[in-house]
Amino acid sequence: MENRNIRNLSLLTDYYQINMIYAHYKKGIRKKEVVFDVFFRENPCKSGYAIFAGLEQVIDYLKMLKLTKEDLEYLASVYPYDQDFLEFMEGFRFTGQLWSVEEGTVVFPYEPIMKIQTNLLEAHLLETAILNIINHQVLLATKASRIVNAANGDPVLEFGLRRAQGPDAGIYGARATYIGGAAGTSNVLAGKLFGIPIMGTHAHAFIQSYPSELEAFITFAEAFIDNAVLLVDTYDTLHSGVPNAIKTFTLMKEKYGDKFTNFGIRLDSGDLAYLSKNARKMLDDAGFSTAKIVASNDLDEHLIRDLKLQGAKINVWGVGTNLITSADCPALGGVYKMAAEKTAEGFIPKIKISENPEKITTPGNKQLVRFYDATTNRAKLDLVMLADEDVPTTDFIAFDPVNIWKRKLVKNYYTKELLVPIFSDGQLVYQSPSLTEMRNKAKEELNTIADEIQRLKNPHIYHVDLSKKLWDLKYQLVHHER
Amino acid sequence: MENRNIRNLSLLTDYYQINMIYAHYKKGIRKKEVVFDVFFRENPCKSGYAIFAGLEQVIDYLKMLKLTKEDLEYLASVYPYDQDFLEFMEGFRFTGQLWSVEEGTVVFPYEPIMKIQTNLLEAHLLETAILNIINHQVLLATKASRIVNAANGDPVLEFGLRRAQGPDAGIYGARATYIGGAAGTSNVLAGKLFGIPIMGTHAHAFIQSYPSELEAFITFAEAFIDNAVLLVDTYDTLHSGVPNAIKTFTLMKEKYGDKFTNFGIRLDSGDLAYLSKNARKMLDDAGFSTAKIVASNDLDEHLIRDLKLQGAKINVWGVGTNLITSADCPALGGVYKMAAEKTAEGFIPKIKISENPEKITTPGNKQLVRFYDATTNRAKLDLVMLADEDVPTTDFIAFDPVNIWKRKLVKNYYTKELLVPIFSDGQLVYQSPSLTEMRNKAKEELNTIADEIQRLKNPHIYHVDLSKKLWDLKYQLVHHER
Repeated sequence: MENRNIRNLSLLTDYYQINMIYAHYKKGIRKKEVVFDVFFRENPCKSGYAIFAGLEQVIDYLKMLKLTKEDLEYLASVYPYDQDFLEFMEGFRFTGQLWSVEEGTVVFPYEPIMKIQTNLLEAHLLETAILNIINHQVLLATKASRIVNAANGDPVLEFGLRRAQGPDAGIYGARATYIGGAAGTSNVLAGKLFGIPIMGTHAHAFIQSYPSELEAFITFAEAFIDNAVLLVDTYDTLHSGVPNAIKTFTLMKEKYGDKFTNFGIRLDSGDLAYLSKNARKMLDDAGFSTAKIVASNDLDEHLIRDLKLQGAKINVWGVGTNLITSADCPALGGVYKMAAEKTAEGFIPKIKISENPEKITTPGNKQLVRFYDATTNRAKLDLVMLADEDVPTTDFIAFDPVNIWKRKLVKNYYTKELLVPIFSDGQLVYQSPSLTEMRNKAKEELNTIADEIQRLKNPHIYHVDLSKKLWDLKYQLVHHER
Repeated sequence: MENRNIRNLSLLTDYYQINMIYAHYKKGIRKKEVVFDVFFRENPCKSGYAIFAGLEQVIDYLKMLKLTKEDLEYLASVYPYDQDFLEFMEGFRFTGQLWSVEEGTVVFPYEPIMKIQTNLLEAHLLETAILNIINHQVLLATKASRIVNAANGDPVLEFGLRRAQGPDAGIYGARATYIGGAAGTSNVLAGKLFGIPIMGTHAHAFIQSYPSELEAFITFAEAFIDNAVLLVDTYDTLHSGVPNAIKTFTLMKEKYGDKFTNFGIRLDSGDLAYLSKNARKMLDDAGFSTAKIVASNDLDEHLIRDLKLQGAKINVWGVGTNLITSADCPALGGVYKMAAEKTAEGFIPKIKISENPEKITTPGNKQLVRFYDATTNRAKLDLVMLADEDVPTTDFIAFDPVNIWKRKLVKNYYTKELLVPIFSDGQLVYQSPSLTEMRNKAKEELNTIADEIQRLKNPHIYHVDLSKKLWDLKYQLVHHER
């Protein structure tokens, strides 16, 4: 279904990209071929890992990449570019190579999660849109994964559309949170575009529309005899809402018998531990032990964990603002850095030096390999290597890229190459799996990652190391530049 | 220019809205007419005020509102709705009344910034999209206003697209930040769609593409002899970047004389106070006192204020992540609450009670009036009144809606009604001003707001009070419900 909110976003770029292309163009540069890496330096929200998402939208963007006549007229209106440059830009397409990890893959700081090899002029234009898409979706998939982790098996629903940062933030946010493990979304458009399960109950205004809470409940239950979750906190949760819900369930059971199924209540204010425990008891005492309790109201991974620790009787967690905006860490700082230039003699590595050692880039045309323990099947480290190196098959030593005294002997393993070809000479060579497959992949991948790395606070740090050859290259270039 | 990224967003709603509509429909409700208010309870980022923005996108959304055949097929696929309901939804349009404050208006908590009067079924569907649009744009316009306030007259540029939460967050974020006072954006698509000035320099990768920093600088300056801002921190700001920039400026002045104009440097790392003061001296000593210094790197209103206090010599502030995501307060909690039902006998006020007094809604069909001091022209308070009350013209007492012992005698004033008609019986009756006019409006409005209310930290609280008649109504309804 080619139905993914696809628009031509060719001008979704920073103005300086256009100006750099122009300056190169005026200098006569046309075909210089370069390699850029996409990576991030810190997991979002102090997480021990991140979940990769957004590739499908990057593919859509690259497929659609073509400046329209209107785009070119606009550019001509903002600066007196040479006419031949505008004609050149009219023919602008993505003609290069893209490798990427697949959506749902668990990824870590300092490893190339995407690699672009194309001519320098194209490479500039692509940067902003690729980072915009990937930074957003990796952030949201990761945030969802943390919340799902805290819910410990209970379904988590994404309910945040009204607080999302614009329509796309809601639409692609729902997509990314589903990949990250959410069970569904309230966002109908995201449901339609991506096939995500949509879920929802009703609002306080529904109750206010009827003479009484009980009449409102019955009206709603009559319309949804197979999905009647009633919001019980409009007036007084334990003295009005829950008793009226029980009256409604009783009436509906009398009227519809076993056709009245999949019902429950939703709590949206007050102390969710206290209210859920009392509501659970009232429901159970009335014979409705299968009635589920859905909770919402400023939830995040930390509050869910604490509520569960306090024995809250909540079956389904609806998470809004804190999920859809990733409120305590609303941006991922993914970057796009030049790593090499391709010449007739091969790839010339490029490095960017910085006073901050963690900001020094890792040079060269690279690959990314994950090593799994052959006994436990747990991921033990990721190795960043040069693309022309052979993937190891016997014991070897891996090198920490920043802390140069740290080395690790790696043995008893099997490997997986994580960067797969997506575009080749501008042609799409990859078929995206379904969203459900991506979500399953994330779940399976997390099963290979140690619990200590998945801890919500102060997680253990996963090893992302360099091959000997790459470490030597980086060390040599740093000292050469200095 | 009908060129605003307009899409049909009719399904951009929470699933529960559809289900409430269905339950009402099944109950036989078709034409019940209701009034909903849009308001928020807290200014974003502990600000003393907010800037209203997003109305134009709400208008576009309402104009486009119509479920497509595809939308209806999708709904039919997720739940076995009665066929006649789906047919009813096919004819779904916005047929009601919308009032709104205008974009650029300074607004405050607890006042109706939009008012919708329409049939109950429509009112449900609209909620989510209206809140999504308004929550995002008010947030970003307000954040921009705070940063512009801190920059104290220096231009602030929005540079955050790569960290925005998806394409729309960048596009509408640029729009809202421009209304809030930003001087421009790096986002080319936002520039094209809305006519916002676009700005930018070049990236580190540009420098890396040439054999030397100096050659890169000269190449860039040759392409932009009237706009050559050079990024000086790729290798070593004060020992390489600034000296090479000075060499470049000297060469260009020799070659182009006064045609080489509007040039400068950009600092993107390191201590911006220290570096800018030293760079300023080096530029001045070389005779380039007109060279401007642009700074970027994790700026926000607090850091800009501190840098200025320390005498940083920065002329232009490029703000990225912290502006485009409003990083320290990434969501505005705007809500949409039922206030009245219209019957043959007139408007029946509706109230929602809560244990938290600040969550009790203000009932009734209302209007919003701003009172200006006739001597100073400063805004002195906003009064929320019933729509059928006459706006006062003589001394009167205003009532604090939450702290019932607080009253205020208001005299020597002139007034302005803030809610203006936008749609009447589904027809657009409002012509949006240009974005520049909205931006000017925000600037003029802020000139009427006391500095104490515009303070970045712990601002003075602006008065939003109730008329006597509305206060009495609210008090009476609260006691009646209890």
